[in-house]
Order: sequence, then structure tokens, then C-alpha cells
Amino acid sequence: MDRLQELTQQWKEENLLMPIWMEDKRLHMIDQRKLPHKTEIVEITQVDQLAKGIKDMAIRGSGAIGIAGVYGMLLALKNSGGNKEAVISAGEELKATRPTAVNLSKTVNRLIEYAKSCPEDSFYEAFMEKGCDILEEQLEFEKRLGKYGSEVIDDGDSILTHCHSGALAGSGFGGRALSVIRTAFLEGKNIHVFCCETRPYLQGARITAYELEKFGIPHTLITDGMSGYLMRLGKINKVVVGSDRVASNGDLINKVGTYMHALAAKENGIPFYTATSSHTIDFMLKEGMDIDVEYRSEYEVTHLNGQLITTENTRALYPAFDVTPNEMISGIITEVGVIRAPYVTELSKLK
Amino acid sequence: MDRLQELTQQWKEENLLMPIWMEDKRLHMIDQRKLPHKTEIVEITQVDQLAKGIKDMAIRGSGAIGIAGVYGMLLALKNSGGNKEAVISAGEELKATRPTAVNLSKTVNRLIEYAKSCPEDSFYEAFMEKGCDILEEQLEFEKRLGKYGSEVIDDGDSILTHCHSGALAGSGFGGRALSVIRTAFLEGKNIHVFCCETRPYLQGARITAYELEKFGIPHTLITDGMSGYLMRLGKINKVVVGSDRVASNGDLINKVGTYMHALAAKENGIPFYTATSSHTIDFMLKEGMDIDVEYRSEYEVTHLNGQLITTENTRALYPAFDVTPNEMISGIITEVGVIRAPYVTELSKLK
Repeated sequence: MDRLQELTQQWKEENLLMPIWMEDKRLHMIDQRKLPHKTEIVEITQVDQLAKGIKDMAIRGSGAIGIAGVYGMLLALKNSGGNKEAVISAGEELKATRPTAVNLSKTVNRLIEYAKSCPEDSFYEAFMEKGCDILEEQLEFEKRLGKYGSEVIDDGDSILTHCHSGALAGSGFGGRALSVIRTAFLEGKNIHVFCCETRPYLQGARITAYELEKFGIPHTLITDGMSGYLMRLGKINKVVVGSDRVASNGDLINKVGTYMHALAAKENGIPFYTATSSHTIDFMLKEGMDIDVEYRSEYEVTHLNGQLITTENTRALYPAFDVTPNEMISGIITEVGVIRAPYVTELSKLK
Repeated sequence: MDRLQELTQQWKEENLLMPIWMEDKRLHMIDQRKLPHKTEIVEITQVDQLAKGIKDMAIRGSGAIGIAGVYGMLLALKNSGGNKEAVISAGEELKATRPTAVNLSKTVNRLIEYAKSCPEDSFYEAFMEKGCDILEEQLEFEKRLGKYGSEVIDDGDSILTHCHSGALAGSGFGGRALSVIRTAFLEGKNIHVFCCETRPYLQGARITAYELEKFGIPHTLITDGMSGYLMRLGKINKVVVGSDRVASNGDLINKVGTYMHALAAKENGIPFYTATSSHTIDFMLKEGMDIDVEYRSEYEVTHLNGQLITTENTRALYPAFDVTPNEMISGIITEVGVIRAPYVTELSKLK
């Protein structure tokens, strides 16, 4: 049994919820668009198929598509019987699927460089080892982040989360925010999660709730406008969300709606944490409001599961993210520890 | 032509969006459950039908069902050829449809008392006059509230509203919040409305957007979690919402989500107004958090238009309302003027 097979076996036994994995020389991927009603596992035998899956968002989340890049190159390695050119060209093809996905291009570039530097004769074995190293490293990242994050979670906590920052967006342990929550849960802390549905795209209702159920973590679904009142009632006493980007001053760019949860947390004296990778802190971005937030199709707002929910003529707006000021953030949980204010100084130490 | 027919004619010419009206001796009612995709007008010939329509929420909104009570008793008057007992018993039947609806029972009780005090011989004419008086009075209420409210709206304002507090919940002019907005618009002020979809029941996406379109008022639909960020961006500079109840200290009980808009308004220095009737200020309620907020069926959260949006096992919570503290409220717009802090003193003058 080769190392990858052994690792996969071990990860399955650990109850990981992997977005993608290798089994019987084929890739297997959960089609995340079908969640939560159906856990459809797609078999992938060709790199083209995987590239299409990434483009079409069947697999999504920055960690998960980085890992998909690794698996895609390993698939090319197997299919070509260890042909270096085939592996490199697979990397290029995969990178091109989501040109702005930093994690994907970083990971694939690392493997392309490695492939280029590898001697021809032991290429298959060496590249396979390297791929496995990166997969293990990514999983270790989540577990380490989870361990640090769990330090801020207390027994009895009732934790709000927004959007999806979980296992299927990462290596399968819990991604970012959910690694924190899952670690606390696995350590035996008695916790409850309030999961925001996260309109318009409903990542919370569809994917986060699904993961919480898979991991057996007690949870309650709410709409995005309910968090503040539940805080006032004392039903929520902590917030843990993921992050799309963190500016060099600690401002958080995350799924739209996050800012309002942070406001409610501040007003009610509730700690607000974001979980992120130390590598995604954007030192080029001085502060959060400097960013040009992406506006997505209004269709997502006017429709729900393809059904029109307003009049035909109604126009809508969909800023994908919002900006939470650093002073509302109690701590930035990373794989190297929990960073606290003053953020400009403390974050710069991660450079 | 009788007075009711004349009034109806006049109201149609004024471009009212009436939830219910009398035409050709029959009641006509918009089935609000079919909105916005279909404007289905139901003909009602019997009081029983109307009672069922109120029970089943085909007609809803505190003002609208109060008016439905008037129309129902006028229908009984016509159908019975002026039989006092029939009219009173219709009133009793209509009141029983929504026992907690204060406006409905107040209005119907007023008419029952009037009927009882009426001499038999001129009953038909007298009762018809009284019914018309009340209908006119209700419409005048909206217009007066709108006039006072419009004073706080400036040319160029971009106004956030939440849930539905509009024409179809009242007499057809604009109910409460929308009377303010519509009056400002009719006065020629250049305004834009950001309309929150209002999950879980989507009253904003379904009904408020529909009314804004009918009245030709420029508007944009957003999800409930977007208001804060749009305020930070300077795209929203005022908030006007309705009210389910106002406590004697000015705390506002309104559709869940309102509190978070108020928090965002406060943080961004944006005025926040609620529109209400001076009669619905609850002097028995010392402060907002004293109220036992109603929890509704979790089905509304886990489903959207009947479609399950999360896993089958996911439980949800649906507090129907939330509480906005008085210090976040710039003014309470009523039909007798805009009340400002200190609320305990100023509101008590309305007693």
C-alpha cells in the first residue's frame, strides 16, 4: 500500500470530511453544489474533469481548491506513469481554473518548481512524496489553528458563526472557523453553535449546518438578522468566523453580514474572533476599507434556489464581502497562535 | 351612487393600493399570499369568506385587518338589508379570527357599540355613514403620519427600510413606514429606498418591493446583512421602519433584524426612525426587553417558499421580533407629529 493510500485510510478513520481524496487510483470529490440534500461523490479519472469541477464550483473554498491542485497533479502523475511534462502541464491547467485563487496558485507553483528541480529517474516516487507532504502539512495547519483557537472557547460557550469556513473548504478537519469549534468540541467542551444561514448564497444553511451535523456538534440555524437579539437575550456569548482577507492593520474582509455581527458583539460585550491563515494576511492592504469589494450577480439576491422571491423588475445589490474594523476584533486566530491588538505591530511580526 | 362607492372611486383615482375595497356590492381583496408574482383579487360575498381570509393571512397587517373588520360589517349590513343583529354578529365573528389583533378588535368594538346605540329605523344609513367615516379616518391617519414623517426626509436621501409597513398593511396609501417614504416622494423629493428582504418570511422582498414598484419609487433589494456595509460606504443615510409595538420608554419592538440595522445606523451616525400610531404605544410596557417575544415555527427558517434549505435534521429558531433600545431611535413618527427623546416624558403626553 502506498503512502497516499495509507494516509487516506487514516484520515477516513479520523472522521475527516474531505472535499477530495484519492482511492483506488481515482480521485473522489464531493459535489458541494448538491449539498445538503445529497452527498454526491464524483469520480474523477482525468485532470480535465477536475479542472471543470473547480471552474464550476463543485469544489470550492480556498484551502480545498489548493488541495485539489495537489491531487490533480498526483492524478496526472499516476495517469502518465510519472511523466514530468504531463504533471507540470496539469498544474498549469489547474491554476488557470481560478486565476485569482491565491492558495491554489501558490500550492501548484510550489509543486511545479519542485517537479522542475526533480531528477527524471526517481520522479514518480519523489513527486508522490512531495504531494503527500503538502497534503499532510495542510491538514496539520487546520489542526494547529484549531488548537490555538480552542484556547479562546470555554466550556458552556454558545458560539455564533457566519457563512462557511469549514472542513469542505479545507482539508477536511474543519477548515478555519470550524477547526476552532471542532477542536473545542473534541476536547470535550460543552458548546452550542448558532449558524447563520448567510444570505444570499446560504453557505451557512447549506454547508456549515451540514458539517456541524456530520461532526455531531449541537447547533441551531438562524437568519442573519437574528444574531444581535440573541446576544441581547444572552443566548450567544462568542463569535468565531472565517476570513477572506485580513488587512495589515487587522481589519477583516469577510462574507457580507460579518460586520453587523461584529457590531452586535461589540454592543453586547461579546468577544469576536476570526480564524485565518498567517499567509493570507495582506500586508499590501493598509486598511480594510481600501479594498474594492467585489459585487456579484443580483440574481443571487432576487432568487433563491432558482426561484424569484421578488417582483420581476426589482433590482438588487450583492456586495460579496464587508469590512469589520480591527477595534471590533478580540483576536485573530492563526496556525501560529492567536494574534491580539495592537494589530499593526503584532501582525507585522508574521511577515 | 352611495358614499362608499364614491369614496372607492376617489381612492382608486388617487392611486391607492388598497388591501380590500367594496365594488358592485361585493368586497374585493388582494390575496397577499400570492404576491409578488400574482396580484390575485378575490371576490367576497359572505362574511364567512372574509373571516377565513383573515385567519389564513390572505389579508394581513394591523391596519388592513382593522379595515377588513369595517368592510365585513358593511357587507353584513348590505347582505341583511340593514339587520342590526346580523351586523353585530358579523363583527363578533370577525373579531374572533385574530384574537390578539388590537386594531381589529378596537375598530370592530367601536362599530358594535355604535350599532347597539343606533335607532332601528334609520340603522342602514346611519351604520353605513359610520363605516365610511372610519374608513376615511384610517386613510387620513396614514396621510397625516406621512406628512409629519416626510419632514425628516431630505432631498437626495437614500433610505433603508425593513420588513413591510406599507399600503397593503393599512388603508392603501402607504401604511406607516411607506407613508413617510411615499409622501416624501410625492412631494418631489429625490429619494432611493434600500429594501431589506427580511428573512425568514421575506415580507420586504415580496411585499415592500412590490409596493415601491407600484408607487414608482426607485428602490434596490438587499439581504438583511448588507445594510451596515452600505452605510459604511455612504450608500444609505437614513432608516425608516414600522413598528409592532413601542414601549412607554420608546423602546421599539419590531420585526427581527431591526435592532441590527439600528446598531449599524448608530455606529455610522445615521438617523433611525420608526413610524407608528400614537394608539399603539404600549404604556403598560415599561421597557422593550420586558416583552415575551413570540417564537414562530422554525419551518420558516429551514424552508424558503416551501423548499428545505438545510439538512433535514437541522433545528432552527425564529424569534419574530427584536427590541431596539430607545437611545438608538432619532424619532418616533406618529399621526400627531414626530416624538423625540426624552421619550418617557414626551410619549406620556400622548396618553
